[in-house]
Amino acid sequence: MKVGGHPYRTIWLKAGDERVVQVIDQQRLPHAFEVRDLRTVDDMCHAIRDMTVRGAGLIGASAGFGLYLASLQARDTGFDDFVAQAGAALQATRPTAANLSWAVARMHLAMAAGRTPEDKRGLARREALAIADDDALHCQRIGEHGVALITDLAQRKRGAPVNILTHCNAGWLAFVDVGTATAPIYAAHDAGVAVHVWVDETRPRNQGASLTAWELAQHGVPHTLIADNTGGHLMQHGLVDMVITGADRVTRQGDVANKIGTYLKALAARDNGVPFYVALPSSTFDFTLRDGVAHIPIEERGAEEVRWISGKTAHGQIESVQICPDTTPARNWGFDVTPARLVTQLICERGLCEASEAGILSLFPEQA
Amino acid sequence: MKVGGHPYRTIWLKAGDERVVQVIDQQRLPHAFEVRDLRTVDDMCHAIRDMTVRGAGLIGASAGFGLYLASLQARDTGFDDFVAQAGAALQATRPTAANLSWAVARMHLAMAAGRTPEDKRGLARREALAIADDDALHCQRIGEHGVALITDLAQRKRGAPVNILTHCNAGWLAFVDVGTATAPIYAAHDAGVAVHVWVDETRPRNQGASLTAWELAQHGVPHTLIADNTGGHLMQHGLVDMVITGADRVTRQGDVANKIGTYLKALAARDNGVPFYVALPSSTFDFTLRDGVAHIPIEERGAEEVRWISGKTAHGQIESVQICPDTTPARNWGFDVTPARLVTQLICERGLCEASEAGILSLFPEQA
Repeated sequence: MKVGGHPYRTIWLKAGDERVVQVIDQQRLPHAFEVRDLRTVDDMCHAIRDMTVRGAGLIGASAGFGLYLASLQARDTGFDDFVAQAGAALQATRPTAANLSWAVARMHLAMAAGRTPEDKRGLARREALAIADDDALHCQRIGEHGVALITDLAQRKRGAPVNILTHCNAGWLAFVDVGTATAPIYAAHDAGVAVHVWVDETRPRNQGASLTAWELAQHGVPHTLIADNTGGHLMQHGLVDMVITGADRVTRQGDVANKIGTYLKALAARDNGVPFYVALPSSTFDFTLRDGVAHIPIEERGAEEVRWISGKTAHGQIESVQICPDTTPARNWGFDVTPARLVTQLICERGLCEASEAGILSLFPEQA
Repeated sequence: MKVGGHPYRTIWLKAGDERVVQVIDQQRLPHAFEVRDLRTVDDMCHAIRDMTVRGAGLIGASAGFGLYLASLQARDTGFDDFVAQAGAALQATRPTAANLSWAVARMHLAMAAGRTPEDKRGLARREALAIADDDALHCQRIGEHGVALITDLAQRKRGAPVNILTHCNAGWLAFVDVGTATAPIYAAHDAGVAVHVWVDETRPRNQGASLTAWELAQHGVPHTLIADNTGGHLMQHGLVDMVITGADRVTRQGDVANKIGTYLKALAARDNGVPFYVALPSSTFDFTLRDGVAHIPIEERGAEEVRWISGKTAHGQIESVQICPDTTPARNWGFDVTPARLVTQLICERGLCEASEAGILSLFPEQA
C-alpha cells in the first residue's frame, strides 16, 4: 500500500544490507511514520511482544524473518540448536495468533532441506520472503473473493454508500500488504463502489483509532471513528450493512479468536440481521482445535495498557495519561472467541465458505 | 456516601449561604475532588451540559435546584415567565434522561401552589430539597430490594465472591446518594457478603474508570477495571454472576436507554445465561413511550469526546491526548436502548418486577 504516495509493505529486507530486517513501527502511528531496523532474533521477539509489529499475518511474517535473522547469527557449530531455540523464543512471544507457530513450523521445514548451515541460511532467507509474498498474495485473493459481497449490497442500496463496521486493525498494517478485513473494502473502493467504514477505536490499545483510521485515510476511503460501545446502536438503526473483521486463530469448526470485543459485535449483528464476515488467510486456521471458546489460549497483557492511554497533546507531544485512580486494579485480555454460529461466512484466499467444519473442509480438503 | 471519611451528597445548598448550590465537580474526578459553587440557572445548565454533574438522578436533582436558583434570580415582575423559560432551558440541556423533564414538571407543579413570587421561592427551595431527599431514599430502597439477588448468588457460590459487572456509573455520583446499580452492591458489601465488581471503563467519557472505580475504592468494595470490550469474554468463561446497570429512561414496556454499550452487554448476558438487572427509581420511567428503540431520543455529543482522552500524566498534570490522526472524523452517541426482552428484572424503589408493561404496572398501578 502507499504511504504519502510511496509503496510500502510492513516488513522487508533493508536495501543495501540484507542482514537487517526493516519494519514500520506501529507503536508510533498515527502520529509519526518511522521505520525500525531489526538485527537479531531478540530484536524481533521484542518487536512482536511490544507490538512494534502486530496483526495475524505480520506476526507470522515477522517470525519468518526472525528465524532468518537467527540463521545469520548462528555459528556453524551448534547451528541447529541455536535456530531451534530461536524458533521456540519467537513462538513464545504471543500465545493466541495461529500464524506465529504456523510460520515457525514452515521455516523449520524449509531449513531442514539444507545440508550445511550456509545452505540453511539461504533457505531461511528464501522462505521468509516467500511467507511474506504468500501473505500479500492471499490478502489480494481475499479482496477478490470478498468484493462481491460489497458490490451486491451496493446494488441493493442503489449506489448509496455501503456501511461496513470493522473492529481492530485487520488492514494492511496487520499483514504484509493489503490486509484481510480491508481487502474487499479497498477492492470495492478502487472499483468505484461507494463505501463508508465505521472504525471501532478498539480499546485498550486503540488499533482502530491509530491504525485502521490512518490506513483508510491514506487510501482515501471514507470512514468514521466510533467508541467500541457504539456498534449495537448503529445496527439497531440500520446504519451498518455488514461487519468484516480479521482473525487471530480460527478452529476447524469455525470458531474465531479475534481482538477482544469482536464477540459483542457478532452478537449485535445476529440480533439485527446484519451479516458478519471474518476474513483470514489459511495460515490463521488451527486445524488441531474444534471448540474455540474452550481451547484457544487467550493472551492476557499488562494492566497498564488499560490504565494508561497514549496520544498526542495539543502541543504535538506524545504523552501517556492515566484514566483511573492511582490504585485501581485492571485486567487486560487481548482476544475473545466468536462462536461459529454467529459468523455468516469466512472469506479465505480460496474463496468463501460457511463457518463450519464441512464448510471449511470444502475449501481445504487436504485437512480432512 | 463518604469521601475521605466525610459524608457527602453530590448536590446540596451551601452552608451559610443557601443562595448558592454546591456540587462535586465530576469532570475533575478521579484525580481531584473539588466542589463547585453554582449561583444561577445558567451556571446549572452549563454544569449539566458539560457533565460537571451527570447521571439520571443527579440530573433530575440538578434541574430541581436549577429552578430554585431561577426563582431567586427572577424579579417579582415577570416571575412566572422567567421560571418557565428557565425550566425550558434546563430541559433542553440533555435529551435522553427522563429525570430531567420529570423534575422540571415536578418543580413547576409545586411552585404553582404559591400565590406570590416569595411563596414560590419558598416552595421551590422545599421541592428541590424534597427531590434530592426522595432520590436518596429511593436509591436506599433499591439497595434493600436488590441485595437479596446478590446474597442468593453468594449462598449458591458458598461464600466465593459474587462477580458483578456494571457499565458506566450508576453509583452515588450519578444520583444524590447511594446510587442505583451500586445500591445492592453497597448493601451486600456492608452486610459482609463477598462481592467483586467488574468495572467497564465506559468509553468515550470513561465514567467507569474515573467515577465508578473511584467510588467503589472510597467504599472499599473490591473491583477490577476492564475495557468495554471484555465483558463477553468474561461471561463466556463463567467470570460474571450478574450484571447490574442503571438507566437514563425506561419505557412502559421496559425498554432501557442507558449509556452506549449497555445493549452489547445485555446481548452477551443473554447468550451466556447471566442475569441482567436494571436498577432505577420511578423518576426514570417514561410512561408515555412504549418502543424505546424507535422513540427514545438518543443524545449525540461532540466528536472531540471520542478523538481526545483526558487523564493524568506521570508528572501529575491533567492533560488531554488525541488518539487518532488529525483529520479523522468521529461520531459520538451517548446512549443505546436495550430491548426489554434482554432484561431479567427491573429493581425499583417499590420492589422488583419483570421488564414488561404488566410487570411495571404491577408496581405502578397508578400509571395503568
